[in-house]
Amino acid sequence: MEPDQKAGPAHDAYLVRPIGTVRSPRSVPRHDHWGDVSAVIELDPAQLQPDAVTGLEQFSHLEVVFHFHLVPESATVTGACHPRGRTDLPRLGILAQRLKERPNRLGVSRCELAGVDGLTLHVRGLDALDGTPVLDVKPHQQLFQPAPEAVREPAWLRAAMSAYYF
Amino acid sequence: MEPDQKAGPAHDAYLVRPIGTVRSPRSVPRHDHWGDVSAVIELDPAQLQPDAVTGLEQFSHLEVVFHFHLVPESATVTGACHPRGRTDLPRLGILAQRLKERPNRLGVSRCELAGVDGLTLHVRGLDALDGTPVLDVKPHQQLFQPAPEAVREPAWLRAAMSAYYF
Repeated sequence: MEPDQKAGPAHDAYLVRPIGTVRSPRSVPRHDHWGDVSAVIELDPAQLQPDAVTGLEQFSHLEVVFHFHLVPESATVTGACHPRGRTDLPRLGILAQRLKERPNRLGVSRCELAGVDGLTLHVRGLDALDGTPVLDVKPHQQLFQPAPEAVREPAWLRAAMSAYYF
Repeated sequence: MEPDQKAGPAHDAYLVRPIGTVRSPRSVPRHDHWGDVSAVIELDPAQLQPDAVTGLEQFSHLEVVFHFHLVPESATVTGACHPRGRTDLPRLGILAQRLKERPNRLGVSRCELAGVDGLTLHVRGLDALDGTPVLDVKPHQQLFQPAPEAVREPAWLRAAMSAYYF
């Protein structure tokens, strides 16, 4: 049988393995006021060498990739829904919002790095619950961000999220 | 046998499944000058409903999570190395840089959204090679970014990356 060129290559699923765990005072999902939450990322010494964090203290902020592990795969949304379940807000596609019930259940969050103690990272403002499996930690580099003045986004969504951090 | 409390819960690996593919004129890895690259993210209609992108056109920038699929798992770094292989630069831990040879081989990149045509997203400045499996697309929201004036990072690294986009 000829390969179907139109369909393009079907990529394989692949296994990701947590490299650490979030320890946070928050263990119940809630929407807002994450800014003052102090938490810890415990990196796994079975996955990483001690020098995996060399130089990390030179960065003020991290980008953390994690697994929304409390969301069952069956609960993920593949179409559109109301942000935060608020029917007074317009429906948005799952890829046009940051809802946790998303394909692959991957979270990406920025937080402040308060300190590095071996493979223990002290962070502030990380919006991930206690026990969250961490898949990656990257330094936040301003170079990779769009200039704030170039960013366009819906004002109504920004208003709806205004208490997210503080 | 008693569970070992000290070790903490060992998280399970889990399967992630690509939701789309990058189509880019760039098919060979290179470091710099990504800013002008126009590419397409072809989302997979077998994974997503047509309304998964409803409202996405209201955002100027995307955050794309992808798999560095050309990096074999055996090539990943679990300790420290010189950024870009440049021995004139200080060694950095793998979590203190954004090198592709990292645990779980997950990339997170911002790019400009130039247009939405069904499940085809036209983007600019996406630093991912042709054929890259896309695991998630999120809207870039300024709310989730640290204030630029609060960001601290090593000047030498910024200098070494100065041609990354333009």
